[in-house]
Amino acid sequence: MVKNDWGCSTYPLVPGHEIVGVVTEVGSKVEKFKVGDKVGVGCVVGSCQSCDNCANNLENYCPKYVLTYGAKYHDGTITYGGYSDFMVADEHFVIRVPDNLPLDGAAPLLCAGITTYSALRYYGPDKPGMHVGVVGLGGLGHVAVKFAKALGVRITVISTSLNKKKEAIEHLRADSFLVSRDQDQMQAAVGTMDGIIDTVSAVHPLLPLIDLLKSNGKLVMVGAPEKPLELPVFPLLMGRKMVAGSNIGGMKETQEMIDFAAKHNITAQVEVIPIDYLNTAMERLAKTDVRYRFVVDVGNTLKYT
Amino acid sequence: MVKNDWGCSTYPLVPGHEIVGVVTEVGSKVEKFKVGDKVGVGCVVGSCQSCDNCANNLENYCPKYVLTYGAKYHDGTITYGGYSDFMVADEHFVIRVPDNLPLDGAAPLLCAGITTYSALRYYGPDKPGMHVGVVGLGGLGHVAVKFAKALGVRITVISTSLNKKKEAIEHLRADSFLVSRDQDQMQAAVGTMDGIIDTVSAVHPLLPLIDLLKSNGKLVMVGAPEKPLELPVFPLLMGRKMVAGSNIGGMKETQEMIDFAAKHNITAQVEVIPIDYLNTAMERLAKTDVRYRFVVDVGNTLKYT
Repeated sequence: MVKNDWGCSTYPLVPGHEIVGVVTEVGSKVEKFKVGDKVGVGCVVGSCQSCDNCANNLENYCPKYVLTYGAKYHDGTITYGGYSDFMVADEHFVIRVPDNLPLDGAAPLLCAGITTYSALRYYGPDKPGMHVGVVGLGGLGHVAVKFAKALGVRITVISTSLNKKKEAIEHLRADSFLVSRDQDQMQAAVGTMDGIIDTVSAVHPLLPLIDLLKSNGKLVMVGAPEKPLELPVFPLLMGRKMVAGSNIGGMKETQEMIDFAAKHNITAQVEVIPIDYLNTAMERLAKTDVRYRFVVDVGNTLKYT
Repeated sequence: MVKNDWGCSTYPLVPGHEIVGVVTEVGSKVEKFKVGDKVGVGCVVGSCQSCDNCANNLENYCPKYVLTYGAKYHDGTITYGGYSDFMVADEHFVIRVPDNLPLDGAAPLLCAGITTYSALRYYGPDKPGMHVGVVGLGGLGHVAVKFAKALGVRITVISTSLNKKKEAIEHLRADSFLVSRDQDQMQAAVGTMDGIIDTVSAVHPLLPLIDLLKSNGKLVMVGAPEKPLELPVFPLLMGRKMVAGSNIGGMKETQEMIDFAAKHNITAQVEVIPIDYLNTAMERLAKTDVRYRFVVDVGNTLKYT
């Protein structure tokens, strides 16, 4: 989840920040990549590279980070994203996509993947045998389930909609499913989770989620509701719980994430579309009619359904 | 900060959960204490001693913990607190008060002290050179400053009231002071703190405090506003910050805290009063006219001013 800090878009605007492709040309000082390499670019294409965050491989928290599109680059130009025939990027912000990962399923890992992977790893509900809830089964939620499963964590998907249960259990191999509107189900799960990854961007109540946590449990927000949420403080105190935030990940961790994905055969579930289908795709997105990400085949080089 | 879970008081009620005294009698199976020992009892006098929390020395998070007053004890009787001539307690919930600590100044450590000490130690903004904010300079806040200073942490007191500045800097040796209503001061301190201990029980805005944190910073609530606070989520994401809760501490850590206090000559600043001054003290408390705790000399055995 990334927003620029201007609060509005600048035009012309070229979106797209889960970008994959093949290197066609490298600059004379490029060391990491050569022509023909499979690569990816995520949400960030620049940072100051001198602050504490950058020094700690947390370019994503650099106050001067440059978003992949609609942001001002170091040279004053506006950045353009992945809805384009080609892209030029500083190699520091380019990720190597392992050969065994298909490009289409790998693309969403560069935002949805790193966002959920980093939240799991930094906050620590990532140990075998732990129990983690994933709220919302969309682009972020479904890869959260896949990463957590690969880490040996027991997963409960929490959703407002019962009709995602079959998908969650049978296809994504979640261990259980909770309908958040079913108070009996929620009550039965009180105090059972070590952590929760909350991917929901709509305003929603936190108390039922805080109640699901064990003592020392962590509710990690990776979606960003536009309005403040209601935070009941007493339930945080009673069990030393926390509500925390996490936003994508640094370049080093993004590479680690995609290497982990390759090792465990984790890809996002995608629907590849040609670029002239884009307006229809946007209409379907508004209705959340996609499982779980559209991938735009800009160059018409991938086989799409 | 402790509340019973009934949401109302039961009468007859004997309050008091920062209790010190001298052992006058011990049961036949008591091993830790003998007659004449200086001891204290905090907020909790019982727990199940079999759950995960109890097994991890976190009796304070045991779902069946028994509060020191107004709660139902294992035998079905109602617990009575420290406003009494004597008290009977299970030795597991009794703390040894080191000889060099005065009883009066040690008493508030059993709630205010452990609450702030545990928050600092568990969440980790307790390393020499770190910068910690303490919000609210009252019973909890002033001991938070003392513990943090003893840990080598740089302290900024954050208060709505400029007239606490002299006290904070000169008497408590805080390193700096921020008036939370002064937007220029607050703006100048944005992104400078590793952690904040928030002792305020009134409803108050969290965003200005979240903004004071560095990346990975922790806002730890130890006061419990009765109504939910507004939590802006996006600022948590941008810097991987958290809002967390902490509630007193377990028995082992409470002993560790008071031993640490003894080693570093930390006591609460108190005003000792005779018990017949109590109604006046309550009126003054309502006006926050005390620095920082009244200590009731029930047995008239302490010298009071």
